[in-house]
Amino acid sequence: MTLDELLEIKIEKPDRSIYDAAKEHWNQIAKPLDSLGLFEDILCRIAAVQHTVMPDIRKKALIIMCADNGIVSEGVSQSGREVTAMVVALMGERKSSVGILAKDFPLEIMVYDVGMACDQTPAGVIDQKVCHGTKDFLKEPAMSQEQCLQAIQTGMDAVKKCRDMGIELLATGEMGIGNTTTSTALLCALCGMSAEECAGRGAGLSNAGLKRKIDVISEGLRLHIGNGHPDGIRKPQEVFRALCCLGGADIAALTGVFIGGAIYKIPVIIDGLISAVAALVAESLLEGCAAYMIASHRGREKGMDIVLSRLSLQPVIYADMALGEGSGAVMLFPLLDMVFSLYGAGTAFQDTPIGQYERHDA
Amino acid sequence: MTLDELLEIKIEKPDRSIYDAAKEHWNQIAKPLDSLGLFEDILCRIAAVQHTVMPDIRKKALIIMCADNGIVSEGVSQSGREVTAMVVALMGERKSSVGILAKDFPLEIMVYDVGMACDQTPAGVIDQKVCHGTKDFLKEPAMSQEQCLQAIQTGMDAVKKCRDMGIELLATGEMGIGNTTTSTALLCALCGMSAEECAGRGAGLSNAGLKRKIDVISEGLRLHIGNGHPDGIRKPQEVFRALCCLGGADIAALTGVFIGGAIYKIPVIIDGLISAVAALVAESLLEGCAAYMIASHRGREKGMDIVLSRLSLQPVIYADMALGEGSGAVMLFPLLDMVFSLYGAGTAFQDTPIGQYERHDA
Repeated sequence: MTLDELLEIKIEKPDRSIYDAAKEHWNQIAKPLDSLGLFEDILCRIAAVQHTVMPDIRKKALIIMCADNGIVSEGVSQSGREVTAMVVALMGERKSSVGILAKDFPLEIMVYDVGMACDQTPAGVIDQKVCHGTKDFLKEPAMSQEQCLQAIQTGMDAVKKCRDMGIELLATGEMGIGNTTTSTALLCALCGMSAEECAGRGAGLSNAGLKRKIDVISEGLRLHIGNGHPDGIRKPQEVFRALCCLGGADIAALTGVFIGGAIYKIPVIIDGLISAVAALVAESLLEGCAAYMIASHRGREKGMDIVLSRLSLQPVIYADMALGEGSGAVMLFPLLDMVFSLYGAGTAFQDTPIGQYERHDA
Repeated sequence: MTLDELLEIKIEKPDRSIYDAAKEHWNQIAKPLDSLGLFEDILCRIAAVQHTVMPDIRKKALIIMCADNGIVSEGVSQSGREVTAMVVALMGERKSSVGILAKDFPLEIMVYDVGMACDQTPAGVIDQKVCHGTKDFLKEPAMSQEQCLQAIQTGMDAVKKCRDMGIELLATGEMGIGNTTTSTALLCALCGMSAEECAGRGAGLSNAGLKRKIDVISEGLRLHIGNGHPDGIRKPQEVFRALCCLGGADIAALTGVFIGGAIYKIPVIIDGLISAVAALVAESLLEGCAAYMIASHRGREKGMDIVLSRLSLQPVIYADMALGEGSGAVMLFPLLDMVFSLYGAGTAFQDTPIGQYERHDA
């Protein structure tokens, strides 16, 4: 796939009339109008994406994209990059945090190596390396255009595979030491913010570590983006260039997952900052992808509010989490299962003596 | 039980050393420190209440307190009070919203009639009526002291029954047309706020309906509380009198559930506004009960933030819900199950080559 081919993809809009019909179904259930709040909207949006008033989310999957980041050599993280491979090895055995968190929950977990620095992809992990770790973006662009396109293609193909498996709802996750630095740099570039405004402590930086991270991101922005974009870069070609330069093969692959969700019409749940930035990159490359995205939690990283508000999405879990791996995204699954139960089997007003509520505009 | 006997109950503090030991267990799990955020704190608090570093929440129950409110005759709700009995009849068959929401989830649901206006308590519902609906608080106190104490006792006894059944975690719910009016009136009395500041639209009031509700609450406060309490009433005897006057047998019974949680050492999850106000009444009557409470969601009603901040509790689900019945509280259950899975079976740093994270103060 070339960049031109990517940017020529047309994203269809989900069917608004199905959204409205699903909302009308909610209104018939014997409970106060709109009383499941944001969850009613999420269900209606899934209905519109699946093009049916009776959507199904029983078959769920989590796609985790893993990669190493050259920028780690600049001292932006508490852990060294060897930790990526250690955690991903646990993931392959389903013994990392998200695997255990969801151990009693029916869920496909697909883990991809899209650019880990190790030679040998761990067992249970799909090898789709586009590099052995990206380059240090203070020295050169993190990825070539070809590597970046290949990572995006890997994400799109992962969703196609899920579509073929009958998966109805997707969650996103990632692992890669240094990826709150890469994602924050991209967030700054896309939103016209400074590193001071956006940088957080990642997996646990000291004050000195945070200062170093801010300096590195600021320098990366100066080198690759310049300061000619006070409102952030918006042109798809420039967004793509920013992705190549500031990188993260994991972010590029997740960008592909969000694009794939829009192409293959599977709703995709955003996890934390890295996943959210990939979602914003996808929407910036191909307008309309955001209609296929669902926000899950508002993580601890400072940039989350900025990205989600740019995507016009609202998270429902506020727990100050900062784990990664898709842990916040999979926590939305059981909540949605409950919401779907009520939607599918809720007692209708017409089967009770209760009069339906009237809608009053506030 | 007399009021004096109630106010003499001593609430023990949960064991802080167990909290700390549980936090230390979290720190040994191979993930960034504190990365499950608020959920780590909730688990540690449950550990301290259960007095074990390995707490268990497999056996869960939802207690729903149902009652009618005389104030409904003043036109403060969209539905007439006959709707209470209709919805509670569905609850008894597990066909109301919360029963269906949680239908695939292992959960005891115990529904109590503590003051419904109907003669016949619906099938599947426990009859513990203290009245046939409370009185209209614009005309007289909603409940007598005896009725109010009896409702509180019912809540305490319900938790004792749960303790005997081996229940390890409780959620609270309610049903009673008009109960956002009674709970908002109590909130105003306890926090020294005006009806304008606190009143919300309940199950869906029009602008005129909301104005009527504000007028009714203001008049109720003038009649029963006066305006000598700019910071809200704090003395337990006065709080009890406010509960009798502005009432809600459902609120009194839920107050008893929160007190019972503190006595029998079972953590109790707060649902929406009515449940939260009952929690605040419990803490105001018997200091220390709040240590046994867990917040679940930040509902749509305006008063929620005020009450939860008075209790120093933070909700984790922000979905603009307004359903009642304990629907938000039970949504916390599957999230906690996931968190407990990771706590109980998470891979320890010592079983991996990964170095433990260091804590840096922010």
